[in-house]
Amino acid sequence: MRIAVLGVGLIGGSIGLAARERLGAEVAGFDPDGGTRAAAAERGALDHAATSIGDACENADVVFCSAPVGALPDLAEAALAACGPEAVVSDVGSTKRAVVERVGTEGRFIGGHPIAGAETAGVEHARADLFEGARWYLTPTDRSGGLHYDRLQRLIADLGARPQAIDAAEHDQMLATISHLPHVMANVLVNQAAAGLGDGDRRLPGVGPSFRDSARVAGANYGIWRDIFISNREAIAGEIDGVIARLGAARDLIAAGDGPGVEGWITGARDDRRRLLEQELAGGPVHELRVTVPNRPGVVAELALELGRAAVNIEDMALYPAEDMASGAVTLWIAGTEEAERAQELLEGLEFKVSRAEGPQ
Amino acid sequence: MRIAVLGVGLIGGSIGLAARERLGAEVAGFDPDGGTRAAAAERGALDHAATSIGDACENADVVFCSAPVGALPDLAEAALAACGPEAVVSDVGSTKRAVVERVGTEGRFIGGHPIAGAETAGVEHARADLFEGARWYLTPTDRSGGLHYDRLQRLIADLGARPQAIDAAEHDQMLATISHLPHVMANVLVNQAAAGLGDGDRRLPGVGPSFRDSARVAGANYGIWRDIFISNREAIAGEIDGVIARLGAARDLIAAGDGPGVEGWITGARDDRRRLLEQELAGGPVHELRVTVPNRPGVVAELALELGRAAVNIEDMALYPAEDMASGAVTLWIAGTEEAERAQELLEGLEFKVSRAEGPQ
Repeated sequence: MRIAVLGVGLIGGSIGLAARERLGAEVAGFDPDGGTRAAAAERGALDHAATSIGDACENADVVFCSAPVGALPDLAEAALAACGPEAVVSDVGSTKRAVVERVGTEGRFIGGHPIAGAETAGVEHARADLFEGARWYLTPTDRSGGLHYDRLQRLIADLGARPQAIDAAEHDQMLATISHLPHVMANVLVNQAAAGLGDGDRRLPGVGPSFRDSARVAGANYGIWRDIFISNREAIAGEIDGVIARLGAARDLIAAGDGPGVEGWITGARDDRRRLLEQELAGGPVHELRVTVPNRPGVVAELALELGRAAVNIEDMALYPAEDMASGAVTLWIAGTEEAERAQELLEGLEFKVSRAEGPQ
Repeated sequence: MRIAVLGVGLIGGSIGLAARERLGAEVAGFDPDGGTRAAAAERGALDHAATSIGDACENADVVFCSAPVGALPDLAEAALAACGPEAVVSDVGSTKRAVVERVGTEGRFIGGHPIAGAETAGVEHARADLFEGARWYLTPTDRSGGLHYDRLQRLIADLGARPQAIDAAEHDQMLATISHLPHVMANVLVNQAAAGLGDGDRRLPGVGPSFRDSARVAGANYGIWRDIFISNREAIAGEIDGVIARLGAARDLIAAGDGPGVEGWITGARDDRRRLLEQELAGGPVHELRVTVPNRPGVVAELALELGRAAVNIEDMALYPAEDMASGAVTLWIAGTEEAERAQELLEGLEFKVSRAEGPQ
């Protein structure tokens, strides 16, 4: 099988690595940046570092367009023009409507979006197992060729991912809620805090873990996110309107000093959060363990090592260090009830104080 | 010195432990819950498990009221009634205006708020070094006794904390921004997501790390947070109004497809975030390292151990596991430029791929 990758950063490079290592496919790749192209070849992601889109697409069975969302419609069009009638052309963009509107009438095009890799960028982080177990959305239309779809979804499963068909508009609506909206809110939170606290020479207070968590993705890669926000603007604007209405309602409850109302709102959020996050993982509900540890370097390692030895995986971890920057308390998220119980036993065996959280503090 | 602690959970219990271990003080403690009282005594936090407020306060030099914010004004009043003229009465509540308004005309009362321990609760997590290096706000008024203030701030420094005087209203405004507002936004985010995604039997999509981070404190302990929201309602309502206005502006930029405007907004958020978080720590600016690691248990330990051995402290850590729940990528926050460079060298020595993030992805 011959695969072409147009854009060989983290995602494109990982497709190349996975296709070569897992399937023995022949991979040609093009990137407008010569340095990226060379780095991808050096990483072993490509058999052939192509000098043009046409060069990369020659005799390709499957083409992946892997560029920022704003550049995808043009790139997909160019790929379709360069490919023969049997080839299938896909992409890996975080929004799907814009590209599907432009080229979705073409039977050889099927949009895609792997949910992987958002935390890093660049071909130096590419890896053959990036898609292992990852959801990979595909957005066929009623014009998509059946044989084309079949080949694409089979290839994606062979790369280790879990393909799932979804309507392009529904995909964008869903991503607006679970990904684009949190980015908008993080940006707005830091804007608000900086305006209120950062004036002149006033010393900023230590910001708490709640702020840090909520602000983590604020100001994320502006080129990529500008494109995402704009290409999904209707859905995101709708989500923002929803949040504005909810904030107004919360504001009114709080301003009125309505104790039962505020309490009902908080417990509703607790239930919503649990339902959303517990369903996240196939491994079962995620349990939170709160662990108090002595203030010394190496303690995180000790804890992680103990769980690693017992093959208990840490799903997520948050450190709440004392101000002197040694670790003070650690929250762990463990998927699966048995695994969480096992983790608690192991950590108590190390004489750490551990409690299972009923809900987040 | 004789210290009384009214309410012996995490904070009250830690005051008792620190005062006994570090200062050799004699600590009496009362808690309305008999089980908590017994647990605190067993933990070694108390010399005397008192049976009433009056019993605990007898001959006390300093009294700490450590109860949910809504109960503090009454508790502080009772403590003042039970104490002699030389005693100083303080509290540890997350909001300060309400309690200061009630008893701040009394020269023996000085409000307080240690920034510590928000991530756990309960006397079982109490520890003598909880306040080590932590900011501890004090809110004296023009009625506060000078000798009383001096004794209190000296005691707090001796507990290991860094006392700082602040006006009660200013304190509450600041906390509204950096702590209460992120909780409001997390609640609203999960409300919005649950309403849009969680209907009926529709399968929830895997939620991304951005959602998980932003939702981390959603639904936090409703009894404590109901009190905090209501006691600080004016400041919080003002912050929410600010966020609503900013969300409206962001919505308009996005809906208009205004590329340069959206880009300017994102880069502004990036700069705000950096400024807020880099000033957070005395150890210097916090650097983000993105590390790609193989998918196997124990790898987090290996990484943390390597840094621990070199006495490099991990300020914060976020795991972005592959869907199969082994670790896939790790983001580390390290305070101090030299420390971050050292960490990068060490991790590259383990053949992990590491990059220094210019900004969050």
